[in-house]
Amino acid sequence: MSQAVTACVIVIGNEILSGRTQDINLNHIATTLGGWGIQVHHARVIPDDEDIIVNTINEVRVAYDYVFTTGGIGPTHDDITAVCVAKAFDVPIIQHPEIAERIRQRPAPQDIMASRLLMARVPEGASLVDNPSGGPQGFAMHNVYVMAGIPRVMQAMLSTLEGKLQSGFVIRSHTVRAYTGESSIADALAQIQLDNPDADIGSYPFLRDDRYGTHLVIRGADTTLLAQIAAAVMEAVRAIGETPEDLGLDADANA
Amino acid sequence: MSQAVTACVIVIGNEILSGRTQDINLNHIATTLGGWGIQVHHARVIPDDEDIIVNTINEVRVAYDYVFTTGGIGPTHDDITAVCVAKAFDVPIIQHPEIAERIRQRPAPQDIMASRLLMARVPEGASLVDNPSGGPQGFAMHNVYVMAGIPRVMQAMLSTLEGKLQSGFVIRSHTVRAYTGESSIADALAQIQLDNPDADIGSYPFLRDDRYGTHLVIRGADTTLLAQIAAAVMEAVRAIGETPEDLGLDADANA
Repeated sequence: MSQAVTACVIVIGNEILSGRTQDINLNHIATTLGGWGIQVHHARVIPDDEDIIVNTINEVRVAYDYVFTTGGIGPTHDDITAVCVAKAFDVPIIQHPEIAERIRQRPAPQDIMASRLLMARVPEGASLVDNPSGGPQGFAMHNVYVMAGIPRVMQAMLSTLEGKLQSGFVIRSHTVRAYTGESSIADALAQIQLDNPDADIGSYPFLRDDRYGTHLVIRGADTTLLAQIAAAVMEAVRAIGETPEDLGLDADANA
Repeated sequence: MSQAVTACVIVIGNEILSGRTQDINLNHIATTLGGWGIQVHHARVIPDDEDIIVNTINEVRVAYDYVFTTGGIGPTHDDITAVCVAKAFDVPIIQHPEIAERIRQRPAPQDIMASRLLMARVPEGASLVDNPSGGPQGFAMHNVYVMAGIPRVMQAMLSTLEGKLQSGFVIRSHTVRAYTGESSIADALAQIQLDNPDADIGSYPFLRDDRYGTHLVIRGADTTLLAQIAAAVMEAVRAIGETPEDLGLDADANA
């Protein structure tokens, strides 16, 4: 089995922390990277504050294989991500020739063009992360990937990285649904987890139509092992007189 | 003006980081606390890992007035939040008499009751955070509030804290919508921000029906000041030949 490749996501933006905007970027990044064999192990949501952004980037870029940021790459005064990444790496901020060239292709009055060209600022040494949707371009500085905050634009940028990143094993999941309180099955689950240290068994209770149930999710790289563990979990559910539902591999249990 | 009261949210759960579950708790907590005069300044999403949970709690509980955690308080082997909070505060884990009493009120076979009683474990010195929705109870240890991961249950717990927490000023927002590229207005906005250091002006671009627009959000405690700044922002939008839309105070711009 290859080694785990890990990532940290940094969601930058006062609007997420104030509750004005519901973040959906973390979920998309986690799902996409997971499919590529990169596991998101940590995420932070931080304000548009230079010191905090710089310190956060420097803390996490040495702790994870990859860092992905969202937000703060437009042309307004509150878009400070590029400057912060340059400070974090202690390099000057420069105008990226290719990004500037693209921006200049769409004519504009001089003052507006000057503002637009702020979106061509990158740390010296950064490479382009293409944005096929139009709008601002992203960039990568070593292992730090800087993307837009608008979900549709971020998703377009992320999609261009497919096949270009180092990848490890892909973590799969096998889900069993049971309409039972977690307490009824807690002991059996703990034993199955003890017997199977190579998989990670989670119990995620839910309320649906005023009934409590739980999704028993077995995660790991070996789908044969996952199926064996799922069988043991279903047997444990049957042992308490309930009927388990096998949702199978990589099920969207919320559907 | 009273002092700012700050909070950090810790979302605990592998299921958020894997992308299996879309977190909606941060948004609810941020909005609710904001209305009570407590500002969420930071959030972290971390895995069900004891060392990481303990270290994260210890790092943020000294940096913010309040810490709110979600997730990991059920009866299964992956529910380790209570144990981690006890370790973070270096106190023993005990059975909370009132929580245990409530759990015992619903009869169950001995082994199931033993599992259920795991949900009565709290760090020594913790106080109850009531859960009027049924299901597990939360607890507070000094400034750390430990709540469920299921949104409906978390929301019920949080609602019981209304009026019981220290509060500062309430940050209000005044939103102006403009269908314009951010670059066209970036200079004027930067100047308005410079002229008004007591408010925080954010520009949040969006794509709607394939048109780019931006929400210009002015945030601060003084609504008279916010209205003045909003007027200046609308004037700046008009100056570039566009028609601003005044969404007013605390608008849900996504609606």
